[in-house]
Amino acid sequence: MQIAIVGLGRMGGNMVTRLLGGGHHVVAFDRDPSAVSRLAQQGATPASSLADVVAKLAGPRTVWVMVPSGKPTEATISELATLLSPGDIVVDGGNSNFRDSTRHSDELAKRQIRFLDAGTSGGIWGLEVGYCLMVGGDKSAFDHVLPAMTTLAPKGGLGYFGKAGAGHFAKMVHNGIEYAMMQSYAEGFELLKATDYGYDLREITKVWNHGSVVRSWLLELAERAFNADPELSGLKAYVDDSGEGRWTINEAVAHAVPVPTIAASVFARFTSRQTNSFAMRVLAALRNEFGGHAVRKT
Amino acid sequence: MQIAIVGLGRMGGNMVTRLLGGGHHVVAFDRDPSAVSRLAQQGATPASSLADVVAKLAGPRTVWVMVPSGKPTEATISELATLLSPGDIVVDGGNSNFRDSTRHSDELAKRQIRFLDAGTSGGIWGLEVGYCLMVGGDKSAFDHVLPAMTTLAPKGGLGYFGKAGAGHFAKMVHNGIEYAMMQSYAEGFELLKATDYGYDLREITKVWNHGSVVRSWLLELAERAFNADPELSGLKAYVDDSGEGRWTINEAVAHAVPVPTIAASVFARFTSRQTNSFAMRVLAALRNEFGGHAVRKT
Repeated sequence: MQIAIVGLGRMGGNMVTRLLGGGHHVVAFDRDPSAVSRLAQQGATPASSLADVVAKLAGPRTVWVMVPSGKPTEATISELATLLSPGDIVVDGGNSNFRDSTRHSDELAKRQIRFLDAGTSGGIWGLEVGYCLMVGGDKSAFDHVLPAMTTLAPKGGLGYFGKAGAGHFAKMVHNGIEYAMMQSYAEGFELLKATDYGYDLREITKVWNHGSVVRSWLLELAERAFNADPELSGLKAYVDDSGEGRWTINEAVAHAVPVPTIAASVFARFTSRQTNSFAMRVLAALRNEFGGHAVRKT
Repeated sequence: MQIAIVGLGRMGGNMVTRLLGGGHHVVAFDRDPSAVSRLAQQGATPASSLADVVAKLAGPRTVWVMVPSGKPTEATISELATLLSPGDIVVDGGNSNFRDSTRHSDELAKRQIRFLDAGTSGGIWGLEVGYCLMVGGDKSAFDHVLPAMTTLAPKGGLGYFGKAGAGHFAKMVHNGIEYAMMQSYAEGFELLKATDYGYDLREITKVWNHGSVVRSWLLELAERAFNADPELSGLKAYVDDSGEGRWTINEAVAHAVPVPTIAASVFARFTSRQTNSFAMRVLAALRNEFGGHAVRKT
């Protein structure tokens, strides 16, 4: 089918490559012209602006937005709203908050533009393995884009979950689970390292990946990481987050659902970024006040 | 090779079957004679007591103990100590605490009996897939038992991790991680169910198992469970534990290693067993005392 991909970063660029491999006609656009020309060399039709994207598609048009969530997605969808025609389709494949996706769906509906929120998982491995796609929004739009999604996803890895927001909500929860799973492994590895058994985590992860209950794709990635750098000595113990974990906690609070491991995993990342935590200085001060316990001075 | 399996429950019985399939000569014993005769029909040599087990093996003997951890393992290893000869080997394949295994190794060493602690993962699926084996203890004993372990484990799923205790410590941490991973998924599923999107968890787990970052063997089991009973309506929200999660927290405390998700996952199970928690009644009482907030009476 004919489809445009807007945003040719790590995810979007590989998705264009996968779509071209599936025989689709892909119009490619990014603010960075070098990303566009790289994919044009692979067979994509280059576009120089969102208006050019729209001009190069026949109706009903499908524009898949794959830019960072928040302002970049907001700006792209707002501009597309003014350029597209009734019956056209906007797919947000980024990590947008489901509340934004619900709003985008409503706003585009006023212009009779159809909307899909397609939570996309698979990272840089998606090119090879395929992208797990969690889709919400207009069902007729889903049916229209199905050929492209079938190419993007591995067999079984594509689901239509209902009204707008359902895709990004599922992706948000997916990422919340991912945060807590990663933290689960991380805690275990740290405890193994704290002993005098001299465990080789390359060996531990290899063995655990064969027949154990904790085997998983994340554990395969851990095995790769330990093989590349057994002590992870090249890394600083500083971990960013891209928001979905926070949103999962927010939604858990809104629905009064207890999420202790997900919350703990997000908070552990916040702690990792602190260099001289005020809370820990408060504790040190109080121990000193009530018990005369020794403190460490800066 | 020749090997005895003591304890023919879900794990031990299937291990005998797998060993027989690998062409090994297996002496089988259980307190329950019907379990022994069932495996004798498959080709195992039946034994009627631990003394009979020892009599039916040629030296150096290998006795693999696969009985519940704690007192049953303790009693079995104590009796074997009096029956076996120098150079013989005891393998504890159960979920013993690594501190018990270290002690068993020391006690058996006084009689020149060799000891291995073999943490075993794979559950009821091990018969088909193989058992992930995490082994500590006497290296010469490991080399002797290697043919049987190679049959029991899937390719890659067998590791020798060092001195006695190293196997069961690794298995303990494995289970601690398992608790937290399971809790991570459980929290996410509960949040999905709390929305009005009407998610079908059969579909969610199927999609997540294909190409997503959270795909894992546990998630495949979740998919099976949801397919069998989408609402899990046949289950009570009551979860037991078999100790390894508690031990992981204990060892994390001993080594001052933060394990917030593992601790939260164990505590969530404790909470699941409470019917009218005293702590929650304390909170209700205090809210009523300071703010006149309504309480629910029994």
